[in-house]
Amino acid sequence: MRKNISVLLLALFLTILAVPLAASADDAAPVPDPSGASIGTAADVVGATAGAPTKEDMETLSAKEPLAAKLADVVGHNRISINMVWTLICGFLVMFMQAGFALAETGFTRAKNAGHTMAMNMMVYGIGMLGYWICGFALQMGGVGGVASLGGAQVLANEFTITIGGNDFGLFGTTGFFLSGVSYDAVVFSVFLFQMVFMDTTATIPTGTMAERWTFKSFVVYAFFISMFVYPLYANWVWGGGFLSCLGKFYALGHGVVDFAGSSVVHMTGGVAALAGGIVLGPRLGKFREDGTPVAIPGHHIPMAVAGCFILAFGWFGFNAGSTLAGTDLRIGVVATNTMLASAAGAFSAMLYMWTFYGKPDISMVANGLLAGLVAITAPCAFVNSVSAVIIGAIAGVLLCLSVFFVERTLKIDDPVGAISVHGVNGAFGVLSVGLFADGTYGDGLNGVTGTVKGLFYGDGGQLMAQILGICTNFVFVFIVMYAFFKVLDLVIPLRVKPEHELEGLDQHEVAVSAYPEFVLQKTHR
Amino acid sequence: MRKNISVLLLALFLTILAVPLAASADDAAPVPDPSGASIGTAADVVGATAGAPTKEDMETLSAKEPLAAKLADVVGHNRISINMVWTLICGFLVMFMQAGFALAETGFTRAKNAGHTMAMNMMVYGIGMLGYWICGFALQMGGVGGVASLGGAQVLANEFTITIGGNDFGLFGTTGFFLSGVSYDAVVFSVFLFQMVFMDTTATIPTGTMAERWTFKSFVVYAFFISMFVYPLYANWVWGGGFLSCLGKFYALGHGVVDFAGSSVVHMTGGVAALAGGIVLGPRLGKFREDGTPVAIPGHHIPMAVAGCFILAFGWFGFNAGSTLAGTDLRIGVVATNTMLASAAGAFSAMLYMWTFYGKPDISMVANGLLAGLVAITAPCAFVNSVSAVIIGAIAGVLLCLSVFFVERTLKIDDPVGAISVHGVNGAFGVLSVGLFADGTYGDGLNGVTGTVKGLFYGDGGQLMAQILGICTNFVFVFIVMYAFFKVLDLVIPLRVKPEHELEGLDQHEVAVSAYPEFVLQKTHR
Amino acid sequence: MRKNISVLLLALFLTILAVPLAASADDAAPVPDPSGASIGTAADVVGATAGAPTKEDMETLSAKEPLAAKLADVVGHNRISINMVWTLICGFLVMFMQAGFALAETGFTRAKNAGHTMAMNMMVYGIGMLGYWICGFALQMGGVGGVASLGGAQVLANEFTITIGGNDFGLFGTTGFFLSGVSYDAVVFSVFLFQMVFMDTTATIPTGTMAERWTFKSFVVYAFFISMFVYPLYANWVWGGGFLSCLGKFYALGHGVVDFAGSSVVHMTGGVAALAGGIVLGPRLGKFREDGTPVAIPGHHIPMAVAGCFILAFGWFGFNAGSTLAGTDLRIGVVATNTMLASAAGAFSAMLYMWTFYGKPDISMVANGLLAGLVAITAPCAFVNSVSAVIIGAIAGVLLCLSVFFVERTLKIDDPVGAISVHGVNGAFGVLSVGLFADGTYGDGLNGVTGTVKGLFYGDGGQLMAQILGICTNFVFVFIVMYAFFKVLDLVIPLRVKPEHELEGLDQHEVAVSAYPEFVLQKTHR
Repeated sequence: MRKNISVLLLALFLTILAVPLAASADDAAPVPDPSGASIGTAADVVGATAGAPTKEDMETLSAKEPLAAKLADVVGHNRISINMVWTLICGFLVMFMQAGFALAETGFTRAKNAGHTMAMNMMVYGIGMLGYWICGFALQMGGVGGVASLGGAQVLANEFTITIGGNDFGLFGTTGFFLSGVSYDAVVFSVFLFQMVFMDTTATIPTGTMAERWTFKSFVVYAFFISMFVYPLYANWVWGGGFLSCLGKFYALGHGVVDFAGSSVVHMTGGVAALAGGIVLGPRLGKFREDGTPVAIPGHHIPMAVAGCFILAFGWFGFNAGSTLAGTDLRIGVVATNTMLASAAGAFSAMLYMWTFYGKPDISMVANGLLAGLVAITAPCAFVNSVSAVIIGAIAGVLLCLSVFFVERTLKIDDPVGAISVHGVNGAFGVLSVGLFADGTYGDGLNGVTGTVKGLFYGDGGQLMAQILGICTNFVFVFIVMYAFFKVLDLVIPLRVKPEHELEGLDQHEVAVSAYPEFVLQKTHR
Repeated sequence: MRKNISVLLLALFLTILAVPLAASADDAAPVPDPSGASIGTAADVVGATAGAPTKEDMETLSAKEPLAAKLADVVGHNRISINMVWTLICGFLVMFMQAGFALAETGFTRAKNAGHTMAMNMMVYGIGMLGYWICGFALQMGGVGGVASLGGAQVLANEFTITIGGNDFGLFGTTGFFLSGVSYDAVVFSVFLFQMVFMDTTATIPTGTMAERWTFKSFVVYAFFISMFVYPLYANWVWGGGFLSCLGKFYALGHGVVDFAGSSVVHMTGGVAALAGGIVLGPRLGKFREDGTPVAIPGHHIPMAVAGCFILAFGWFGFNAGSTLAGTDLRIGVVATNTMLASAAGAFSAMLYMWTFYGKPDISMVANGLLAGLVAITAPCAFVNSVSAVIIGAIAGVLLCLSVFFVERTLKIDDPVGAISVHGVNGAFGVLSVGLFADGTYGDGLNGVTGTVKGLFYGDGGQLMAQILGICTNFVFVFIVMYAFFKVLDLVIPLRVKPEHELEGLDQHEVAVSAYPEFVLQKTHR
Repeated sequence: MRKNISVLLLALFLTILAVPLAASADDAAPVPDPSGASIGTAADVVGATAGAPTKEDMETLSAKEPLAAKLADVVGHNRISINMVWTLICGFLVMFMQAGFALAETGFTRAKNAGHTMAMNMMVYGIGMLGYWICGFALQMGGVGGVASLGGAQVLANEFTITIGGNDFGLFGTTGFFLSGVSYDAVVFSVFLFQMVFMDTTATIPTGTMAERWTFKSFVVYAFFISMFVYPLYANWVWGGGFLSCLGKFYALGHGVVDFAGSSVVHMTGGVAALAGGIVLGPRLGKFREDGTPVAIPGHHIPMAVAGCFILAFGWFGFNAGSTLAGTDLRIGVVATNTMLASAAGAFSAMLYMWTFYGKPDISMVANGLLAGLVAITAPCAFVNSVSAVIIGAIAGVLLCLSVFFVERTLKIDDPVGAISVHGVNGAFGVLSVGLFADGTYGDGLNGVTGTVKGLFYGDGGQLMAQILGICTNFVFVFIVMYAFFKVLDLVIPLRVKPEHELEGLDQHEVAVSAYPEFVLQKTHR
């Protein structure tokens, strides 16, 4: 084991040495501005809003109105500042979701593994961040160009593409390794922060499904792998200028795959990885009887789990509304309200479903229904009206209940916290719902396609087609890669803890603590 | 039971069908802007701050300075963006208070009901939001006109009024049902979000007082009722252009009822509803001995409760400072600091009180003292200086202790978390304190009355009179309606769980979980 | 005891009476603006950003462009609003860190003292705030001049100085007592809020080291003392215009002591105070065997502790990025990302260290490693690139582990939560690292010295010298004052609870609660 660690240490050291190389490779790129002093200029008022001066206005009129021209610099800087403040604060809220995941997952699992579950949630943040800093961010966003709402130099300008039939299909970016060289820039750092916390959400999802039986060593390798490669690639294809975002431009399929805040990019990726991991790892000891019927293993701390869900719902405002990367894009009001309404509808419909079919409003399912509504609205939140948001949330809540029972009873997969159903199934549904409910009030010019985003119910079947292609690509890519990864990893570092450790609890064996050394615990379910 | 649920489902379905009707009824209204692209224009710089151009300036000068005129569009949009970003982020903070309430209430009650208490706090958020979306928001804000700080179309323009003595007394609004039709607008959605989380605070307060014995079924009906009707009506009267806000304009009583962030609108309404509910529901089994003396039933998880109070104090910054609905209203600095200082003084005076009269600084009471200070400063926070804020908080802390003992020992009402004292009594005191301590440095033009807001100590007895009228109206209206509601509801769906369920704990019976299935609990207090 | 309380009450009363005196003493000062209506004017666009109009531009051009001139008022107001919104929201996040400290400290200590530990964390917030309001803020910031990014009147203009060799050495400020008189100003209140929550962080750090054995009475006196005098003085010297900030101006030692967000001002001060307190108070009963070897006393609630660390990491974004006091200073993107990266590196290196040398990735140490990275990056966060941030964090994580064992095994000091190592040692390292890693991309004109901030590795050994002087001053001043304070206080009010209370637990004896009255606890470690 210690040898493995030494290898890791060496790897870390080498990567840090690699920085100057990465940096020097970008010598020809434009000058970045890490202090931000020159970011946000008169250029940023051009076309900023209806009635704003055009480029021609600025050129022809500024000679006659020198004060106004100088004022424009401050106005542009103010605009960029509003957007950066918004982006950062929303990013902070998303980072806080990691605490929500930690509490929800730990509360819904058993006391004997509480330290281990918390530890995975903490280290997926730390390790994932380092992996994303090393190369994940560069692969995802290195070819996105600039982020207009945040101004600054267009330094993220190198996308690796392959040309098929005259169209350039983007596969991954190649600028921004270690945030060094040209990417040492206030704007790029802000974009990194916001994108990092999204990746972190994906990376933490499988820790729920694979909880209570996963070795910490193999988890560490997993956390590097998903943050450095798997998440960044799919995210590039949808958000980084990659090929899925070009389906509209190339083939007139709506605006290409549209996923506003990541129902597929973040949640479905996490859910599908969790599915692959859950299959490879197998169920917890005692989860299924010999005849295959599942045994309920209740979570050990319901208030903790529900508190975690509240934190998630709180952070989700940053997740969805922050995805404009612009406080000056006033659609943020609609996004935030839709997000909230879908979560309410998801909780409510899950409650009604359980009450009707199982006799009681099971609060564990209700809390997951809230999350399901949030996952589902994440892709369409900017494109639908409030009635659609409520309908999407309500469907998500029911879908969650159906999926939880299907995964457990039919697929016989052990998913202690329901992550596959919450994030995987409802992630897919969320992306699909853009293709159905988008009402054409927003998204003009998105992905280089003129006109707003419209779903099938508002007349654009092509958008629905793009969404379906996105879902299929996500499932095929993520499932195959993650399944293969877990299978191969298992040969090198076993994924599964020893049975006696699993029975005793993983805490002391894996992370050297007892979660509750003073509380007397029942032997039941231990 | 399942039949009831089916009825609820049907009701939900019908309400969603009703949307197009509600929407089409508003055909003559101005055009909303859900994408926000045209919200925030040159018009929004007019009079925005000292020295800003007037309407005449814009008209006469813009022809000579075309660049400046175009620049004004971006400046106006920036201003609206700052205000919307502020309003939304503060709204997010207020939403997070729901987690604080959940933890505080659950920590201060017993382990056997922890799942049930958490469940009420989660579903009051979900159900309340849906009820408020259906009609609560329309009744409250449908006649408020526009929100100048957020720009946009003046779509919330229909208040139902009755005319008495030549004056139009507003009773409730009639625009904004389901956020549909003209209210599908980025500004209206933002206002909805901010107002919704305030309503949610009111709705969750009685779940503390009525904890550990309330049936979940009747709770669900309550959550719809208070969010759809009771809260919106009183809120309309003070904040939505209703009659209490016009007492200044019509009868020269200061600025009419002034309640900056809701000491009465939110907290007193919640506290009075809790009082009515607590009376109808009766005390927990074993709370009072046969001779009427109360038995202490300690909360089961003090760290959880204190953590909840910290979350509340955190969210309260959004509650109070966000109530400007404007980040460009720089009084936010004074509001936030006063809020903080009153909470410190409330905790400190409650500590001193308990230490002096009961020998020890009871931390449960201290935590409630912190909240009492926050509740009391909520109405006056924008109108007083820091010394007054400290005095108001200090009085609130003592008032809390006195009230807790009065409610329990004299009124013989069982209030497990002290919600009646924290929110009801100190809510009333907060509104009163505006009429005493407002120092005339803020509030020029509020409720259509020229001049700033002044309390009795600064020369305006009329303001105090208005505040007293507000308190009386709140108590009479809320208490009678909620008392009658609970009495009638009890006939249809019993409010009280069966005694054997109460003794065993509500968790499995009402919400199908055990909060702590693995922890060994003492039989004491169970 | 009650007599003591009466004395405290009297003191409070007298201080409030003293307000008018303090206020009237400032009659000659400029006019403050508590409503903020005139804060943020055309003057605030001058030099606000590259390309902004100069003072001369405004004077010569505004006559020809009257609309642009008026527009400038709104542009300036917008700019100040962006900065105030940023400062306040970041301040709210820092305040929330108090909840993180409460949960982390309580989780890492024992169940029998959980109520007491929570109580100290709650009251240090309340008491500290009152002490800081009375005189702490005035001593710290009363001579800072204005805060340019927030506009407003320059009311905090009175620094008490002594002149040595022709240079004025600032010792403490003398404006702003009770936030009264000229300091009743929207800008001053905002600055107060932001500075108060920083002070609160310092004040709460020793409650971790001194947990489980400290009398609440003496704690109350401590909380007033550190918030009124000790913290404000050192903070004045570095941030308030005091002598340490002038070392660059006077003696060409770089930019004087540079501590961007408080590695020394906040964390080292807290850590050194904790060291003094820990020495005076002595170890918990049973912590050391007769032969001096330490006994492990595990924390009672690991999920609580880890959740607390997540809250701290969340609030730290406000701590560091908010320290620009300006959302228009776009370096905030770099600051926030560096903060995050250092925390990841700290957690990761602590994990590797423990795994390598102790065989397992001890999650308690990992959580503290995360905090160590945060503490260390707090001073340099604005001045370094991301590679340096990762290196600083990685060193901090290892330093933490070494220090924890050194404090416990060599110094024989009992520090239940590791606060001395996390905050003291890494605070010192953080300040030092500015003098090593600062890369010259930021800080132009800081502390009145032209040019950017550069550390030894980028060519400025003088900066490193200044940093070392800052560290020495902090240690000598804080340790001597706090050690003497605790020694003297102990004579008046014993610091240490009775042994029988310590064995039973402090909860009922000190703060009149049982943290977990229904959970069955093991006798071990009680």
